[in-house]
Amino acid sequence: MDLFSKASELNGSNTPFALATIVSSSGSTPRGKAKMIVLADGSTFGTVGGGLVEAKVIEEARKAIDFDRPVMLDYALDHGHGPESLDMECGGAMKVLVEVFGARPRVLIAGGGHVGLEIAKLARTIGYRVAVVDDRPDFVTSERFPMAAELYVQPDLEAALAAAPVDRNTCVVIATNAGDERALRRFVGSDSRYLGFLGSRRKVRVLLDKLRAEGFTKEELDRIRAPIGLDLGAETPEEIAVSIIAEIMAVVAGRDAAPLSGRDGELVVVRGGGDLGTGVVVRLKEAGFRLVILETGQPRAIRRTVSLAEAVYEGQSTVEGVHARLVSDLDQARALLADGSVPVLIDPDCSSLPALAPFALVDAVMAKRNT
Amino acid sequence: MDLFSKASELNGSNTPFALATIVSSSGSTPRGKAKMIVLADGSTFGTVGGGLVEAKVIEEARKAIDFDRPVMLDYALDHGHGPESLDMECGGAMKVLVEVFGARPRVLIAGGGHVGLEIAKLARTIGYRVAVVDDRPDFVTSERFPMAAELYVQPDLEAALAAAPVDRNTCVVIATNAGDERALRRFVGSDSRYLGFLGSRRKVRVLLDKLRAEGFTKEELDRIRAPIGLDLGAETPEEIAVSIIAEIMAVVAGRDAAPLSGRDGELVVVRGGGDLGTGVVVRLKEAGFRLVILETGQPRAIRRTVSLAEAVYEGQSTVEGVHARLVSDLDQARALLADGSVPVLIDPDCSSLPALAPFALVDAVMAKRNT
Repeated sequence: MDLFSKASELNGSNTPFALATIVSSSGSTPRGKAKMIVLADGSTFGTVGGGLVEAKVIEEARKAIDFDRPVMLDYALDHGHGPESLDMECGGAMKVLVEVFGARPRVLIAGGGHVGLEIAKLARTIGYRVAVVDDRPDFVTSERFPMAAELYVQPDLEAALAAAPVDRNTCVVIATNAGDERALRRFVGSDSRYLGFLGSRRKVRVLLDKLRAEGFTKEELDRIRAPIGLDLGAETPEEIAVSIIAEIMAVVAGRDAAPLSGRDGELVVVRGGGDLGTGVVVRLKEAGFRLVILETGQPRAIRRTVSLAEAVYEGQSTVEGVHARLVSDLDQARALLADGSVPVLIDPDCSSLPALAPFALVDAVMAKRNT
Repeated sequence: MDLFSKASELNGSNTPFALATIVSSSGSTPRGKAKMIVLADGSTFGTVGGGLVEAKVIEEARKAIDFDRPVMLDYALDHGHGPESLDMECGGAMKVLVEVFGARPRVLIAGGGHVGLEIAKLARTIGYRVAVVDDRPDFVTSERFPMAAELYVQPDLEAALAAAPVDRNTCVVIATNAGDERALRRFVGSDSRYLGFLGSRRKVRVLLDKLRAEGFTKEELDRIRAPIGLDLGAETPEEIAVSIIAEIMAVVAGRDAAPLSGRDGELVVVRGGGDLGTGVVVRLKEAGFRLVILETGQPRAIRRTVSLAEAVYEGQSTVEGVHARLVSDLDQARALLADGSVPVLIDPDCSSLPALAPFALVDAVMAKRNT
């Protein structure tokens, strides 16, 4: 089996994997050009040259799968002792691109009725893997559900439910009729990423009260999304599917599903307002982010006229139309953010980070050894 | 042309209409069984018998179109003088069902690229009418957009934009590349139901600043949904389409797109806690609504043991597991609502309605002449 058919097989079974590719090399590297597939458990297919470099790539690839993010690795294969140098005999340097594949969410739909069918269609449209559980073999068929990669259909619903595996990549939607309670019992203790229940408020309350009385914990019951979906005024099966898939997308991505237009840009904290940090602040501000600069009490910005860190000495500073002002506490910082300016807070240890809870932290302190 | 082909024609052109059907009649009614199509302007096709009844049905059908809600009309064709009696010579009674059709929203997509195509597909899937504007006749074709009922495609974008009509039923999505500014200028002053703009926060800000400087009002610019869509973490065209269509659905339905599971039931105010009002309260509470009862200071409930109005005299009352308690102000009412009980507020004139802002008001005062 070649590497691409292995990749195709993994994709087909929705197994997440990383594909490591040597994109550039200089000097003598262990091997010229190669690709390697890395699975979450560290097992591999193909090679990027073996040895210490490969061990390092496998380690980073597993992290990349875990974070579901691609990464570019840059190795110096020399005798240096810096963090990115690998003490090998060959010399040279190597860049390795690590892409992540196959971690698309899986939607497991209990109930292949009209709503279940529309959920399956839309889930597949956005590239999710679709699995369906039902107890009607004549009704829930591969002809009616051609988009489903997995069908668990047998006349005994409990057996069908038991046969359907659930993992942390699975989003469970319960949309049966007579089988709601059994489906809920099956999945309430699972480690599914999402658990939604299609039913009226009354049905939801009656069922949850029953499970609570039986000893299911508040934590178990609180994670059930019931009534399921976003409040879009959905009425038809197609509309209900949009409301449910939209909610699942938001949960999977860790977003809140609020309108994008009604909100501020995400908050980014930049550590260090020297010329590097200032450049980052100016670009991110243009892109719509809100920014806070954390500085030491005595920043040593070399190019002071292009450094917002100057605000530490002058009280304020303006670079490329971005206005920064020294603030003494978080309340002042928030007030300034609301005005569209950039607060500069003296906080060399970044102790205000938990309270700021930023979307991202950019460490733009250049002389890291000296801070 | 028969009535059904007329209905089909109206449906095809997305013209809203009401279909009035006599569903039952007793005694001698003007006509046995008949259907009538009523348009928003009051013009008709077919008849339900003519005369005063038909005039009344047309009036109600126009209201039904306006509210986008079906209604069942109940007429007594006798000599009575009650509100629902029509002073006709024929006697008898008539029930008329008024259904509303064809008021599906229309999505007008400026830009038939990859995202525009996915928006068109999903909009059509949920039954919306699709119109597309573009300046690339070779690219935006009826083959690529078979779901579009209207295509406005010509090499001159401004001419294409000018050719595309917009009304209060139209949801405009701007997703061009080079034509964003021209499209925004075309639609910002329109009376579209929704106006969304696909673009980065930076692009949005630059464009809005420009339009503001040119004198467009805050009201005009504030209604632009930019960045467009709900925050679902959408990345692919298919996912972006879900995020946009979900936002449009919420706007069309007047909902806020928040998860249904994270919220309380809607608030319903019931005027009168006698046995009728109590029955309504018990059923609605079971269905998940939150309820407030407004009462007079001396309710004359005849069947006091099944009336929550009893709380006015006893301080509290419980019927079929629903617990009501007399409160003296809105703060107490809200605290009780949070506990899942039903506050009874003495407010015969319903003066607390604006502050309560309920989802619905049920007037369950039986002896209306006496209040």
